Amino acid sequence: MSTDMASERLAVLSRQLCAGMASSPSTLTVPTSDMRLFLTHDNRELRDRVLDFLKDPIFRPDHYQSLLDFREQTLQRLKKVVGQKFFSVRDYVDNPRKFIASLESLMWADYSLAIKSGVHFTLCGGTIARLGTKYHHDKYLPSIDDLSTPGSYCMTELGHGSNVMGIETTAVYDKAAQCFIINTPNDEASKYWIGGTGQHGKVCVVFAQLTINGTWQGPHVFVVRIRDDSGAIMPGVRIQDQGPKMGLNGVDNGRVWFDNIRVPREDMLDAFSSVSPDGTYTSRINSVSARFGAVVSGLTTGRVLIAAGGVDGAKLALAVAIRYSVQRPQFGDKVIMEYVTQQNRLLPALAQTYAYHLAMGHLKSLMMDKKPADAKAIHILSSGLKAAATWSRVQVMQDCRECCGGMGFLAANKIGPMMNDMNVDVTFEGDNTVMMQQVTRALLDDGKTRLVPSTPTPGTLAAGGCGCAKTIAALLAYREATQLAQVADQMSQAAASAPGTAAAKAAARSQAFERNLDLVLEVGRANIERFCYENFVAETERAPAALKPSLELLANLYGIKCLQKGAAFYLGMGAMDRADVAALRTAAQAHYAMLCAGGLRSPAVALVDAFGIPDHLLQAPIAFDWRKI
Amino acid sequence: MSTDMASERLAVLSRQLCAGMASSPSTLTVPTSDMRLFLTHDNRELRDRVLDFLKDPIFRPDHYQSLLDFREQTLQRLKKVVGQKFFSVRDYVDNPRKFIASLESLMWADYSLAIKSGVHFTLCGGTIARLGTKYHHDKYLPSIDDLSTPGSYCMTELGHGSNVMGIETTAVYDKAAQCFIINTPNDEASKYWIGGTGQHGKVCVVFAQLTINGTWQGPHVFVVRIRDDSGAIMPGVRIQDQGPKMGLNGVDNGRVWFDNIRVPREDMLDAFSSVSPDGTYTSRINSVSARFGAVVSGLTTGRVLIAAGGVDGAKLALAVAIRYSVQRPQFGDKVIMEYVTQQNRLLPALAQTYAYHLAMGHLKSLMMDKKPADAKAIHILSSGLKAAATWSRVQVMQDCRECCGGMGFLAANKIGPMMNDMNVDVTFEGDNTVMMQQVTRALLDDGKTRLVPSTPTPGTLAAGGCGCAKTIAALLAYREATQLAQVADQMSQAAASAPGTAAAKAAARSQAFERNLDLVLEVGRANIERFCYENFVAETERAPAALKPSLELLANLYGIKCLQKGAAFYLGMGAMDRADVAALRTAAQAHYAMLCAGGLRSPAVALVDAFGIPDHLLQAPIAFDWRKI
Repeated sequence: MSTDMASERLAVLSRQLCAGMASSPSTLTVPTSDMRLFLTHDNRELRDRVLDFLKDPIFRPDHYQSLLDFREQTLQRLKKVVGQKFFSVRDYVDNPRKFIASLESLMWADYSLAIKSGVHFTLCGGTIARLGTKYHHDKYLPSIDDLSTPGSYCMTELGHGSNVMGIETTAVYDKAAQCFIINTPNDEASKYWIGGTGQHGKVCVVFAQLTINGTWQGPHVFVVRIRDDSGAIMPGVRIQDQGPKMGLNGVDNGRVWFDNIRVPREDMLDAFSSVSPDGTYTSRINSVSARFGAVVSGLTTGRVLIAAGGVDGAKLALAVAIRYSVQRPQFGDKVIMEYVTQQNRLLPALAQTYAYHLAMGHLKSLMMDKKPADAKAIHILSSGLKAAATWSRVQVMQDCRECCGGMGFLAANKIGPMMNDMNVDVTFEGDNTVMMQQVTRALLDDGKTRLVPSTPTPGTLAAGGCGCAKTIAALLAYREATQLAQVADQMSQAAASAPGTAAAKAAARSQAFERNLDLVLEVGRANIERFCYENFVAETERAPAALKPSLELLANLYGIKCLQKGAAFYLGMGAMDRADVAALRTAAQAHYAMLCAGGLRSPAVALVDAFGIPDHLLQAPIAFDWRKI
Repeated sequence: MSTDMASERLAVLSRQLCAGMASSPSTLTVPTSDMRLFLTHDNRELRDRVLDFLKDPIFRPDHYQSLLDFREQTLQRLKKVVGQKFFSVRDYVDNPRKFIASLESLMWADYSLAIKSGVHFTLCGGTIARLGTKYHHDKYLPSIDDLSTPGSYCMTELGHGSNVMGIETTAVYDKAAQCFIINTPNDEASKYWIGGTGQHGKVCVVFAQLTINGTWQGPHVFVVRIRDDSGAIMPGVRIQDQGPKMGLNGVDNGRVWFDNIRVPREDMLDAFSSVSPDGTYTSRINSVSARFGAVVSGLTTGRVLIAAGGVDGAKLALAVAIRYSVQRPQFGDKVIMEYVTQQNRLLPALAQTYAYHLAMGHLKSLMMDKKPADAKAIHILSSGLKAAATWSRVQVMQDCRECCGGMGFLAANKIGPMMNDMNVDVTFEGDNTVMMQQVTRALLDDGKTRLVPSTPTPGTLAAGGCGCAKTIAALLAYREATQLAQVADQMSQAAASAPGTAAAKAAARSQAFERNLDLVLEVGRANIERFCYENFVAETERAPAALKPSLELLANLYGIKCLQKGAAFYLGMGAMDRADVAALRTAAQAHYAMLCAGGLRSPAVALVDAFGIPDHLLQAPIAFDWRKI
């Protein structure tokens, strides 16, 4: 991460008084609209315009319709959005904050719409904008912007999901005809899961292994027409509609084969590499693997959108569940929000959602700044937050659905169908297990000798440390460093006892990494938790005074929950004792009481209202008056 | 639980040698068909017949259709099943094993079909069979058996889900007309979530507060026609179709209001209580609450079916995910089953599914034996297993879906749509949070002075104890007893410091219980884990010799995973140390290696094949040959 941000966070942490939450007021006031303003990092007016536009009746959910009708409806919705010209695909490069803000704003309306838009504008259009040059921009971007050529992104193959470098589709340059010939050599090399190709896609960017004059140059990207203007499939292209999924059925996924498809020489995207008419290959980047890295680094924007979607899904579910829980009595007058079991599920999730939202804001800033020194931090954060935010979404939405009882199962209350649709997010745009491995790999590659901090003193939390940001941050950093060192040690030991060749040692290190993949994932989680906590504390420091009390409380609750999740680690290492664990529980429950005080006007309600989900997108009747359902 | 069963389990445990798994063979052979036989507790031939019948094309999934078409399809499927006369509603009382086996066998075909059948036969028909007498049996059961009057179960009200005793629907006896007059006094008293009433239901059992001559007698059950033979809604009945849900859309749920519905005196179900023509109320049970207990105790069968469904859902997901994982390579030739992250998600889940399946078998035996001494054990086990098995199903199916990557999201691969449908099971037929409270309440009510075992010695697991059933059982029992004592202590302390009246002390105890509801749920989970482990060990002992090695390994893996989940507790109490935690990880991984050895012919595959899911119900293409999808 950028050095000044990191040092700022450390400075903030060291300024924290460690006298518990003694200075906190006994009641908490959350100025909802100020908080909403604080949470909206950019493009406020644009976001409001998009959200307001989504009042149009075409965006009202219809869960009665058949799959094919839903797909058609999704296309019509996308057309309606496109017609508003809120943004252009050129913003992908020129004004990425605007681009991201526009697409993010669609999430609460319908995830199928958001993903169909994302495939078209981000994956297809964004790839042409970033990997193409003026010729491609002029030729393709206008018809992306007006949706006259719905776009797709042909990367994944049946046999190669996570292993993109291993794709088998071929592109061979035919000098005589001055074109590339693209082929699917076998069924496993068919492009698989390709959003938008099942019914509507007309143009797509195709990843294929390029060979010129018998020399393999690695994966390159070609623009290919798969349907003509009338919608008929092009000769040489074969498409199989992939049919129903467990959700996201507004998106038409397809499987695509290419049989001697001839692509004009000019239609290879050539920002990094190009082929001259006589078949001379030139590239700004020498090695195949570095070139591949440049080609796929554009996936970051997609990952950020998926992570943001995960956070937004959690926001919506929490808004519905908390607003319902503060008004719904059961067994007499006591409302269900007053039960500690309900609080345990909803309130740490609320704190975590704030933590992830603020971390996403930080990630977006790093991406916009485009400092070369931040490249690694962006890689780590975008991979780790994608995994953490979507795994967390699975849990939070399930908890929220359960916290609403049967009401949470009713489609009208929105959490359920949205969960089904979003379930895809943990494995697409980078499988979460692979994403977390990337985090740990990047940390290991750091090369620096790692100093594992000395073991924190047990009893500190019980002695008032639960409210101390410095104590919490130290524990979180200790966990990350210790677990990372455990993985590194396993790898070093394996290398040391392997035969002397470098290859054998590398293989031994790699095997040790894989043998300890459970630990590797732990390190990734620990890294994200530590980062999100530090960032939350720094953001709180920066926030307007009126917002500090509630942000401090949420940051603290988030930290407490991270420590509770890691309790077995800390206890095992002797960094906590039983009294610390008990103190964490007591501290969390004190926060619950504060957050729930006031029922319908409680801080918990104000904090979900600050997410700014308009009523016409919140929709769920139980979020308003459950008696009037 | 029955004393002889409990003492048998203890005897088995004390016979276990504690020399680790040293005696285990280095490879594991699983005779699939013997294992299947062992797992099929009863009605083997009937189960096979039902499963085979489900080959009929009408049971093939169609995810393209609209909601209303799916409902109609579900009704037609139910008619087809009913036409086979596999069982009669009278079996609910006369041959409950046969009744349960028949309904269980529908789960793998379609959960909507299973639930629509369950509502009709178990909730409606079973209630008439159990709470009615000859008059009702003769009048209603034939048309339940031939489905000429689809049945519903009007218990839950909008305002009263978990609190059934608090329902507000009224039944007042009109002596002059010799009938009961049933009314919905307000919108919150409308019957809510009533399966089968949205479109198809014709007859239903209605729970209402009975008043006779001005005296309230508590909830009683009445048989009410809600639609006539032609399907027209009866006068005085108002029904609102509840529309789409996040799944289970083959079932037509409805909301029902009654406006001065006149029910003939004979149509009150009178097995426990009756009203004479002149309005004299008599009951075999004196207190209103005991009477209510008798009325709702029939819910146990429904809960057992839901718990069994949860176990069956996990079985199907594991069969698909494990069969896919052993053949699917990624990054070269290594199949994904060889990654420890994949093993960690699938193999302990496999062990747990065996544990729950065997525990369900024990529960069914207790229910069939009908010994009064077992009533409490049945209450604890049916409540706790319902919650544990369905919560576990959520996790296992999500993990299996993720372990299949994008393939897990495809409807054709079955896990996804089944997850959506089954998501209802954690909150219906008794919300899981409430179910787990019932377990702990029953344990607390035991009255006996509880001896908390002394703290087990840390280091025992690391010194070879991971393979010792006695060590594991002792740790699990220690956790349950300690956490139960913690709750009991909190309640006693609260009572001691409350003012002297009995009511004040009872209120203080109750408040302390609710303040510690997080612990209360932990106790419930600890109880179920301890029971399932002990039972698994006892079942292994009883099993044919050829099955013992694999059952022993699974039981051990289940125990290990329970200890791992409780690690923070054990470490905090000083009952484990860090070396123990490391030893558990090592032991689990040794089991993984054994279970995965042999790839397509590995024990893991044989163990899921032993669930006996026929190919025509497994369906998922990836469970067969993923390349041919």
